[in-house]
Amino acid sequence: MAYEFKTRRRVEFSDTDMAGIMHYSNFFRFMETAEHAFFRSLGLSIINSGDPPVGWPRVHARCDYKSPLRFEDEVEIHLLVSEKKHKALSYVFKFHKLNATPPVFVARGSLTVVCVSHHPDGTMTACSIPKSVSDKIEIAPAELLE
Amino acid sequence: MAYEFKTRRRVEFSDTDMAGIMHYSNFFRFMETAEHAFFRSLGLSIINSGDPPVGWPRVHARCDYKSPLRFEDEVEIHLLVSEKKHKALSYVFKFHKLNATPPVFVARGSLTVVCVSHHPDGTMTACSIPKSVSDKIEIAPAELLE
Amino acid sequence: MAYEFKTRRRVEFSDTDMAGIMHYSNFFRFMETAEHAFFRSLGLSIINSGDPPVGWPRVHARCDYKSPLRFEDEVEIHLLVSEKKHKALSYVFKFHKLNATPPVFVARGSLTVVCVSHHPDGTMTACSIPKSVSDKIEIAPAELLE
Amino acid sequence: MAYEFKTRRRVEFSDTDMAGIMHYSNFFRFMETAEHAFFRSLGLSIINSGDPPVGWPRVHARCDYKSPLRFEDEVEIHLLVSEKKHKALSYVFKFHKLNATPPVFVARGSLTVVCVSHHPDGTMTACSIPKSVSDKIEIAPAELLE
Repeated sequence: MAYEFKTRRRVEFSDTDMAGIMHYSNFFRFMETAEHAFFRSLGLSIINSGDPPVGWPRVHARCDYKSPLRFEDEVEIHLLVSEKKHKALSYVFKFHKLNATPPVFVARGSLTVVCVSHHPDGTMTACSIPKSVSDKIEIAPAELLE
Repeated sequence: MAYEFKTRRRVEFSDTDMAGIMHYSNFFRFMETAEHAFFRSLGLSIINSGDPPVGWPRVHARCDYKSPLRFEDEVEIHLLVSEKKHKALSYVFKFHKLNATPPVFVARGSLTVVCVSHHPDGTMTACSIPKSVSDKIEIAPAELLE
Repeated sequence: MAYEFKTRRRVEFSDTDMAGIMHYSNFFRFMETAEHAFFRSLGLSIINSGDPPVGWPRVHARCDYKSPLRFEDEVEIHLLVSEKKHKALSYVFKFHKLNATPPVFVARGSLTVVCVSHHPDGTMTACSIPKSVSDKIEIAPAELLE
Repeated sequence: MAYEFKTRRRVEFSDTDMAGIMHYSNFFRFMETAEHAFFRSLGLSIINSGDPPVGWPRVHARCDYKSPLRFEDEVEIHLLVSEKKHKALSYVFKFHKLNATPPVFVARGSLTVVCVSHHPDGTMTACSIPKSVSDKIEIAPAELLE
């Protein structure tokens, strides 16, 4: 059972905007990439869990920005599981810029994703999280989520 | 004095992801584009207001997703000013898919932006919203923000 | 039969990079959007032509940049059909910045797309362009393609 | 003196489109990221070379696609210096999908970038490549560029 995951990446030129900082929408791309790497770290795939495979659309996304990220900054994304329901998972993400001493807290994000089954007509219905996923994920201790 | 603005756009192929729907991060690009069009509608520019020009970094962004958007969907983005402080503005965004009868409520977003002055060393400090901007923007009636 | 199409758009903040100009990869997004609008102008859909619907993966893309585009620039994208083969179409795109007198030639792009049928195992094979598409598209006069 | 560089990355969910494959414009983002990592591998920075720092706008970009990339594919990007002029550099990029046996050749790209100095009015003029950069880069052997 895992409740956290850390990954790193470097801010790319195409992540920046004319203000010289990472465009705010890209923090959401980074959160999702951390979520998917978390799944891989558990031997799971975000696109291939369940039979037939379930989907994980986002129903809530949020980010609070404290300090900008710039080109070539190295950023650590710390994912924490904040909620685990029958049909939904919530995550908190803490972003730190590592190329600073000490590392600088940059942003805090959150995501809520719902487990869905896909129907032949293209619609989706919320469904239970597959046991193969649920058995591997637990909620992080409250003090880590602050 | 204006407190709202509506704009439309069509979901492009590059806005979609392998789930066949608009990638969730693109709602944040759409919000920002509506914010900038709102400024233009007031005869202002988001990059050229104040002397010297101020910046508007985002400190908070949020989106709650109710229904997916797909390729070629026409979406209306309804911007409403939800807060106006000395150094910050907050917006609410209501997304509707127009190519449905009746239009489908798709998502609700929010943004808080802070007015900043730029320093020669690349840092920024929060500052008062220029009068040329402040005089043109007011808070939307509470019932519209629900 | 049509061999050209013109569309306009405005450069958005998220299209720019820290160099203060539109990121070069976004010209390719703009080309594709013009291609899809061209199809719509003919009463076609890029995702729903043929029975079963064919796909149009890109096999070649190119852009030559002459002058930068900046935030809020209005750009005209002029699509011209440069080749029409049994299983492939090629386009040329001329980009002009309209908010200048006279308009400034900004870039010239090209795309070659192949018509494919999708197989149940996820693979694709090149196939003939559906007659419903082929009947509506012709090659532009050579002098326009220069 | 270096004439090549290899880097790897994984295709992310936000890199894909509704066709289930990496959007073709993202190959250009990947090329640029390899170019910047090549500079870092030489102890250089793409944004901080020369005094005052020069810029490197793209004047030509091209990609020929042979096989699609999908979510979570691991891709190797092999950069080769194909031309070195007084004021310009050209690169070739070979993309291979590594999670296949043997690795699959996916695409071949090319970029030409021009060295420019920035003027106070925002314009740019082509200028000589700084010696600190030029001394570290040479053209790859012809047989590698095929």
